[in-house]
Amino acid sequence: MKIAVLFGAKSFEHEISVVSAIALKKVLKSQIVYIFCDMQRDFYLIDATSINAKRFSSGAYKKDPKLELKKGGFYQKSLMGSKKIECDFLLNMIHGCDGEDGKIAAMLEFFDIDFVGPRLEASVLSYNKLLTKLYAKEQGVRVLDYSLLHKNESFAHIDTFPIIIKPARLGSSIGISIVHNASEIEYALDVAFEFDDMVLIEPFVQGIKEYNLAGCKIDGAFVFSIIEEPQKEEFLDFDKKYLDFSRTKRVNEAQVDANTIEALEKNFQKIYANIFEGALIRCDFFVHENVVYLNEINPVPGSMANYLFSDFESVLLQLSKNLPQPQKILCEYRYINSIQRAKGK
Amino acid sequence: MKIAVLFGAKSFEHEISVVSAIALKKVLKSQIVYIFCDMQRDFYLIDATSINAKRFSSGAYKKDPKLELKKGGFYQKSLMGSKKIECDFLLNMIHGCDGEDGKIAAMLEFFDIDFVGPRLEASVLSYNKLLTKLYAKEQGVRVLDYSLLHKNESFAHIDTFPIIIKPARLGSSIGISIVHNASEIEYALDVAFEFDDMVLIEPFVQGIKEYNLAGCKIDGAFVFSIIEEPQKEEFLDFDKKYLDFSRTKRVNEAQVDANTIEALEKNFQKIYANIFEGALIRCDFFVHENVVYLNEINPVPGSMANYLFSDFESVLLQLSKNLPQPQKILCEYRYINSIQRAKGK
Repeated sequence: MKIAVLFGAKSFEHEISVVSAIALKKVLKSQIVYIFCDMQRDFYLIDATSINAKRFSSGAYKKDPKLELKKGGFYQKSLMGSKKIECDFLLNMIHGCDGEDGKIAAMLEFFDIDFVGPRLEASVLSYNKLLTKLYAKEQGVRVLDYSLLHKNESFAHIDTFPIIIKPARLGSSIGISIVHNASEIEYALDVAFEFDDMVLIEPFVQGIKEYNLAGCKIDGAFVFSIIEEPQKEEFLDFDKKYLDFSRTKRVNEAQVDANTIEALEKNFQKIYANIFEGALIRCDFFVHENVVYLNEINPVPGSMANYLFSDFESVLLQLSKNLPQPQKILCEYRYINSIQRAKGK
Repeated sequence: MKIAVLFGAKSFEHEISVVSAIALKKVLKSQIVYIFCDMQRDFYLIDATSINAKRFSSGAYKKDPKLELKKGGFYQKSLMGSKKIECDFLLNMIHGCDGEDGKIAAMLEFFDIDFVGPRLEASVLSYNKLLTKLYAKEQGVRVLDYSLLHKNESFAHIDTFPIIIKPARLGSSIGISIVHNASEIEYALDVAFEFDDMVLIEPFVQGIKEYNLAGCKIDGAFVFSIIEEPQKEEFLDFDKKYLDFSRTKRVNEAQVDANTIEALEKNFQKIYANIFEGALIRCDFFVHENVVYLNEINPVPGSMANYLFSDFESVLLQLSKNLPQPQKILCEYRYINSIQRAKGK
């Protein structure tokens, strides 16, 4: 199999995507075709044998062949016209803006390119943490209480601490603060509003358990990863997340009882439903007093959560053969033709 | 001003978009550049002077110059390379799939093209009627009660009629039925499931009032259209909607009292909030026993609801000068550079 890995893009998590994509080389036996989207949103074909992080940070990639996204795939210009980059499917590995907000999904859907990754609607619902909560509740999955604050709104008096303040639309811990007392609120809001004009305020529950579960639906049946209890020191900061995104080694399974595993998997299924079909996602849950809460959905998880699967590659390849088919759309000129007929034309 | 009107696309409402776009020629004094997206999603530059419905239904448009969507705009190939189609802004007039589901918005945002129309997130929220309801409730706007049904699910016993059955994700009355008794349910569901794998079932309230209100936000202030009470015979069927989409003449203002106008405008503002910035939308409301309910959001209304404004063109042009600016995204190679430095490279 030949997998086109799309990564980079105009995103606060650009660099994470680079790290994530390179990590995949160690994980997959299949041939990888690397397609890099730079910060100016130009596409480049990167030679897999010479790929390394410095190629991007130094700007050396600019000497690589430029690609264009058109109907059916990515094309490389040649003197004789343009040549399609062949692959069996494309893997969306762009984290954050562009990749997880729905832009890339929309373009791949529009240009009719087979890809593993969240579709347009699923992207929008998982990218915006408020929408994630509304969607989860509709699906019967609990979420932590929250309040919303828009830029330039004054915030109500808060007297229970600690709280956690998050921009509504970013991942990878960017812009997130834990606030321990009233004097820290203003700075935390300033930080969060740097990244979005809407922030969520949630209680920060001390001692709450965190469990991550990845999976996908293949041929009607769910395939689950092991459950991971992420390391945390309050929560992972950006640098630690980076390391996290380059992971290629399997992690240890969390010590959880069968009931908890079942509850996590059931909640995962409700979230995945049909709208995440075609994607391998990671759901991050909280468990508090035996109740499961969804924390967030990662529709393009760091290094595709490969380290949670015993045979990641076969899951990925099977998923690629079970992609959702685009809706059949019949367009005809029924009305215009009937008018023309009536006019005798 | 030079306005690029983008219309057509792979949509059940393709033909409506053609009619809607042509209607605009009678309405605008500004120069129009017509960009047609055909059912195969190829783009063509259509000469405004010779535009007519038959050009599309007959396939004659295929002789017109092909365009490519790339960074910054649409480009026409020439022997000397490719030439950008110049315009002051682009107006998204694609109804239904592609245009209102977020695909076109995503591509225009990705390729950094100034456009009037709903942005990606706003598109997804208005395209899916379930999400519209969740969003409206979150914004403090009432909606009618509903139940959801997925394909192949059996439906609960219904004993209160009439009800209305709608595909979750289509506009323009396509696939919608009013069901008067139990014997009609199965057929109505079959029809709706032709178009989507999720349908909404709502009470059909006899004698409920319908009011449509269009508007947009310009420089922080709302500009509203007059309020229209749409004609209805139960509800508009597809053929009548077609005629509706070609409207260019102003309609009469609905006879509503000042309180109702104020209530409708307040609800419109809550829906529009910030997420519809850049778009001129039409909200269709119900009023029952003096309570306002949102029925649906049309983020690309038929012929842009021009017939509801006294000076449509100046609203459109002002809006085009007040488009939301894309988020500033700082991407740097902070982590990779620090690793490189540590390695002494």
